[in-house]
Amino acid sequence: MTKPLNIGLIGYGFMGRAHSNAYRRVNNFFELPYRPVLKVVCARSAESVKAFAETWGYESIETDWRKLLERKDIDAVDICVPNNLHKEIAIAAAKAGKMVLCEKPLSMNAAEGEEMCQAVEQAGVANTVWYNYRRVPAVTMAKQLIEEGRLGRIFHYRANFLQDWTISADLPQGGAGLWRLDATAAGSGVTGDLLAHCIDTAIWLNGSINNVTAMTETFIKERKHTISGKVEKVGIDDACAFLCRFNNGSLGLFESTRYARGHKALYTFEINGEKASIKWDLHDLHRLEYFDHGDEGKLRAWRSIHVTDHGGEHPYMSHWWVPGLQIGYEHSFVHQVADFLEGLGKGQPTSPTFREALETQKICDAVLNSAKSGQWTDVG
Amino acid sequence: MTKPLNIGLIGYGFMGRAHSNAYRRVNNFFELPYRPVLKVVCARSAESVKAFAETWGYESIETDWRKLLERKDIDAVDICVPNNLHKEIAIAAAKAGKMVLCEKPLSMNAAEGEEMCQAVEQAGVANTVWYNYRRVPAVTMAKQLIEEGRLGRIFHYRANFLQDWTISADLPQGGAGLWRLDATAAGSGVTGDLLAHCIDTAIWLNGSINNVTAMTETFIKERKHTISGKVEKVGIDDACAFLCRFNNGSLGLFESTRYARGHKALYTFEINGEKASIKWDLHDLHRLEYFDHGDEGKLRAWRSIHVTDHGGEHPYMSHWWVPGLQIGYEHSFVHQVADFLEGLGKGQPTSPTFREALETQKICDAVLNSAKSGQWTDVG
Amino acid sequence: MTKPLNIGLIGYGFMGRAHSNAYRRVNNFFELPYRPVLKVVCARSAESVKAFAETWGYESIETDWRKLLERKDIDAVDICVPNNLHKEIAIAAAKAGKMVLCEKPLSMNAAEGEEMCQAVEQAGVANTVWYNYRRVPAVTMAKQLIEEGRLGRIFHYRANFLQDWTISADLPQGGAGLWRLDATAAGSGVTGDLLAHCIDTAIWLNGSINNVTAMTETFIKERKHTISGKVEKVGIDDACAFLCRFNNGSLGLFESTRYARGHKALYTFEINGEKASIKWDLHDLHRLEYFDHGDEGKLRAWRSIHVTDHGGEHPYMSHWWVPGLQIGYEHSFVHQVADFLEGLGKGQPTSPTFREALETQKICDAVLNSAKSGQWTDVG
Amino acid sequence: MTKPLNIGLIGYGFMGRAHSNAYRRVNNFFELPYRPVLKVVCARSAESVKAFAETWGYESIETDWRKLLERKDIDAVDICVPNNLHKEIAIAAAKAGKMVLCEKPLSMNAAEGEEMCQAVEQAGVANTVWYNYRRVPAVTMAKQLIEEGRLGRIFHYRANFLQDWTISADLPQGGAGLWRLDATAAGSGVTGDLLAHCIDTAIWLNGSINNVTAMTETFIKERKHTISGKVEKVGIDDACAFLCRFNNGSLGLFESTRYARGHKALYTFEINGEKASIKWDLHDLHRLEYFDHGDEGKLRAWRSIHVTDHGGEHPYMSHWWVPGLQIGYEHSFVHQVADFLEGLGKGQPTSPTFREALETQKICDAVLNSAKSGQWTDVG
Repeated sequence: MTKPLNIGLIGYGFMGRAHSNAYRRVNNFFELPYRPVLKVVCARSAESVKAFAETWGYESIETDWRKLLERKDIDAVDICVPNNLHKEIAIAAAKAGKMVLCEKPLSMNAAEGEEMCQAVEQAGVANTVWYNYRRVPAVTMAKQLIEEGRLGRIFHYRANFLQDWTISADLPQGGAGLWRLDATAAGSGVTGDLLAHCIDTAIWLNGSINNVTAMTETFIKERKHTISGKVEKVGIDDACAFLCRFNNGSLGLFESTRYARGHKALYTFEINGEKASIKWDLHDLHRLEYFDHGDEGKLRAWRSIHVTDHGGEHPYMSHWWVPGLQIGYEHSFVHQVADFLEGLGKGQPTSPTFREALETQKICDAVLNSAKSGQWTDVG
Repeated sequence: MTKPLNIGLIGYGFMGRAHSNAYRRVNNFFELPYRPVLKVVCARSAESVKAFAETWGYESIETDWRKLLERKDIDAVDICVPNNLHKEIAIAAAKAGKMVLCEKPLSMNAAEGEEMCQAVEQAGVANTVWYNYRRVPAVTMAKQLIEEGRLGRIFHYRANFLQDWTISADLPQGGAGLWRLDATAAGSGVTGDLLAHCIDTAIWLNGSINNVTAMTETFIKERKHTISGKVEKVGIDDACAFLCRFNNGSLGLFESTRYARGHKALYTFEINGEKASIKWDLHDLHRLEYFDHGDEGKLRAWRSIHVTDHGGEHPYMSHWWVPGLQIGYEHSFVHQVADFLEGLGKGQPTSPTFREALETQKICDAVLNSAKSGQWTDVG
Repeated sequence: MTKPLNIGLIGYGFMGRAHSNAYRRVNNFFELPYRPVLKVVCARSAESVKAFAETWGYESIETDWRKLLERKDIDAVDICVPNNLHKEIAIAAAKAGKMVLCEKPLSMNAAEGEEMCQAVEQAGVANTVWYNYRRVPAVTMAKQLIEEGRLGRIFHYRANFLQDWTISADLPQGGAGLWRLDATAAGSGVTGDLLAHCIDTAIWLNGSINNVTAMTETFIKERKHTISGKVEKVGIDDACAFLCRFNNGSLGLFESTRYARGHKALYTFEINGEKASIKWDLHDLHRLEYFDHGDEGKLRAWRSIHVTDHGGEHPYMSHWWVPGLQIGYEHSFVHQVADFLEGLGKGQPTSPTFREALETQKICDAVLNSAKSGQWTDVG
Repeated sequence: MTKPLNIGLIGYGFMGRAHSNAYRRVNNFFELPYRPVLKVVCARSAESVKAFAETWGYESIETDWRKLLERKDIDAVDICVPNNLHKEIAIAAAKAGKMVLCEKPLSMNAAEGEEMCQAVEQAGVANTVWYNYRRVPAVTMAKQLIEEGRLGRIFHYRANFLQDWTISADLPQGGAGLWRLDATAAGSGVTGDLLAHCIDTAIWLNGSINNVTAMTETFIKERKHTISGKVEKVGIDDACAFLCRFNNGSLGLFESTRYARGHKALYTFEINGEKASIKWDLHDLHRLEYFDHGDEGKLRAWRSIHVTDHGGEHPYMSHWWVPGLQIGYEHSFVHQVADFLEGLGKGQPTSPTFREALETQKICDAVLNSAKSGQWTDVG
């Protein structure tokens, strides 16, 4: 029998929608021990949150997240607010005995993250961070291929996340939908927002990173702040790139920017191993590029695998449609909920846990520190 | 205020799932005058249909579609059964005053289709046929570009729909999930199943077809029939190709097969106009290829448009996520439901109506007749 | 020791350049028993042909091809003049005991071609037709893969050759560089010019064609004729498409046009076999797309083979640069000369001979006849 | 009238062939004031160099490059020997009053390069370095687009050059064809061999580089040395990556390796400007990817420009075939010879001169120094 799992969502922006969609859909496609129930959504504006609740079918609303945490009818809290609020809410939720699903990045920095880890670990509550790209089927398959030993010794890992939505100098910083441009709310710019995704995938696929040398840039130095109404110095990094050495001896190259004209959300990674290589690209997320040196010589080539189920062998895809028919961005969230509920039934953690996501935070810290100091910096 | 629209679904196969998913999701993403309510699902096996109802949240089940039609609490009937049952159910539904949403192809042939058209027209009930590919955003955008006159005089239209799932001689014909291989249930093979999609899009984008010359083939002549248990002659066409002339003077080339190794569901079309050309491909359905001769000479090139919302200008996409994040196959059904409900609110028909879909049926008839006679054949 | 082979070139247009280039380069890259010597080039205008001879290093010129044929110092005659002159020159050359290399298509029609075949066969002179695309390495490799049995039973063959250079109604017909638009000089339009290439490759790769049903169109009905200075009816086909059945049971689909906006010289073909499929495209001629159903399930995919030498296994490529560095269009002609000279040394014919190229002519005739009659037509 | 320019080639490896081919072909396709005459080729082994001279049509041979420099009948010396010999030969050639065409990289390091620059400048002889990729038409066109101001302010430049031919530990270092793996002969590994290309293009397109932080790695620490016959420590860098800041404020990211499985010669670069972006890739060198933000919103997309002549507007392409027909790798050398001869006629230098190529050498030095010191390093 499927048991209900009562969800309390805090924040209802872009991620609030993506998560709500995942909760609503997961049981239509996956047989699971739990069924999410959209119990309550919380945000400061009662009017707005009411409209959201109606659209998505939440049973009730709150305007104070502390009230939400006091409610007995909530099993799990989903944190979808700006980064500077993650720590306080997560720790309070853990103390209230709630499971915690936290949007990425985990925290403003590693120190905050460590506190959050201790809170959920002490409370013994299930916890996970929404690094959703791990569950794009092509990415999950990359992980499988690596674990099957198909790549052999790894020489190179490179990743970038390119966007172009902040090139205009007229774009304000801060305010509704723009908190990612406000250092106070976001902590950092592309490093926490975009590189964090690249790093999470990288350490999952290729293991830990030892040290980094980084460079950041803020191309537009001042922008009007929506809240103050004044032109203020921009505190975030518009672009960040770093070189690194992985613990397995491979070399890493990472870059992220919001100033790459022509790219909306181009997250790509490539891994070069002794025996095989893999590439992936978010703009065509249903494909995995694969080169196998073991192939017969004259037929060796990059294969563009359409990861849409071949006899059930492609991760997650047997739950969806028929071979050849692609899924999209939002499905990665459905898969994360499915895995979370599956793990709950088995009493197993769902990766990445807070503790696992903390590793990404430490690397982000090292990257930002290196960019300031101009020195190679060890990951803390 | 959003009004409920009570749905009765007949059949729960692949299309039953796709439609149910669309009904459940549409109001999360679109503001509409109606909200589908999953009132009842009907199929012969009570056990199976119960499980389906539970998964998808249908309130009740029926095992006899006539019972479903008698119910007062049903506003709209959705027909997802094999083609040979469309006519009887659709006509009865219309007579019962129900709206009818019918899976494609409309019917076994044009004669049946004509009866169905008359039934819904006489009853004055809303009706539509699920040619879902019209509502893939890239395809809808192709339609817009043509209507804006960007292509100019059209010279060529070519389309194909290539699959490879029936190459094995061991695959049986008929039975659960395989009725598409049984001529008695399906009427034809790839012509009605796949070419019908190509034709629907073609006449929507490029206008009516005057005459055709066609060729069909059945590569595997005999297959075991699941129901009889015996090896029987295969009655369907495994492959079908035809040349045609459109009423606007352009030339058409169409092909479909289930024997094109390497293609799972490769529906592609290309239109060549005097001023511009367009290409599309279901395997990367979020992209539209566009060549504009009006571009500056040295920069003329095919553009690979990532149809994921640029400032709300890409059809349907402002309802989904953010630029760069792709949607998938299933969203085309959500869009069709959205348009149907929108049309209902305005008292407008939703294209393709039965009458519009009948045109595709007439072309399929001409194609199959030409393949038999070896003659150029006028569309009836 | 490498022996000289004295070449007499008749005509110096686009093909005259391509062939001259091939003669000049072949011994730099291939070890061969013969070395082409550019002895004489012939054309009506002494002034123009002198300039050409100087650019390309021809030792002498002629302005009357009959004089060229009388010369004792010429071993081989290369025919690069409009199609309507092929027959007379080829027959006279054969009678003069010269080897004959003839630009494609062989002739204006099969009847002419038959006379030409008889002439070279009776004279016992080496002969070949410049269907150069057979010697693009990726295409040669397609032939090898088929001969190795990797595709198994063939189900489908489709090819097209798309251009867009005659869309403007202001383009005149006939005259220098435009004889391909003049039915008197060219015999047909795209059928002989472009489809002939597609057909030659097809019968080489997939065997003979039994019968066809075709459609042609002339979109611009009248054009100014450069020679007469008057607006005259256009006699050529601007576009031609046909369906066919191959002798091996597979289905064929061919199309060619000069009205496909956005395509300069897009010759593509695809073959679908029971076990594997192959695709190729002239716009990226150094790549071969290959899908092998024998690959492990989850890794099955189209491979984009960069045909630039992997350990010498890619046809012709070990003669050029290093892996990863592509060659271009002109190299196919170099390869044909290399094979011709190699064959000469061994006393073996070089494919396609006149007799082999005659088959293409017969199919073109059947296609044009079918387009006129509207009937399925057997290949003569 | 075309004047002869007598060439003396020193070295006859891969580059010796590429240059010889360029000299032989250039006047067939370009109208030029000079015509290269293959006067002499020089190498230590008389037997081998004779065979080369015969294949390529050199009139004579030498086995001592000093003898070659003494010859009065030589106008220009082309240096195609390993890097450690460039300096001595180039300086001696300049002193002998010969023009000097030197294979890249210019020298083992900037200090050597400076001496070479002074030598050619004092002698007043024409000089150029074979950074051939500048003359791939798509790359030349990138330069034009930038100079036309189409990209606006530049934010990002990224480039890599990926190969996979040294992954096997069994590959020896040094000896014929393998001097690139011997630090004594090559100076560095991928930095001078591959990154030098990336850097040359980058500073040509995007201006000078201020400072760098770099990382190198030697994955296989010991290899058998062909000359000594012993297993010796490998002195070259197998991989090198660096971050940098350009003088125009843009950020740079460069990487090169011979351990990227699946890439034979994948040189790619991408430039992101405020108004437009450009991408290029050596594996499909006839294409330029271009994104123009000035395009109408819903049609904005990456264009894949097939740089094969549209009305003569694509650089160099009007000299070759017809639109749609691609050229290959070797043509970039033909273009460099054409430009060199053209420049000679006008008394203008041909870019990159020794002095211009020295800039690349300085950056390579800074990169290698930074990799050793772990510090950000200014370009000298």
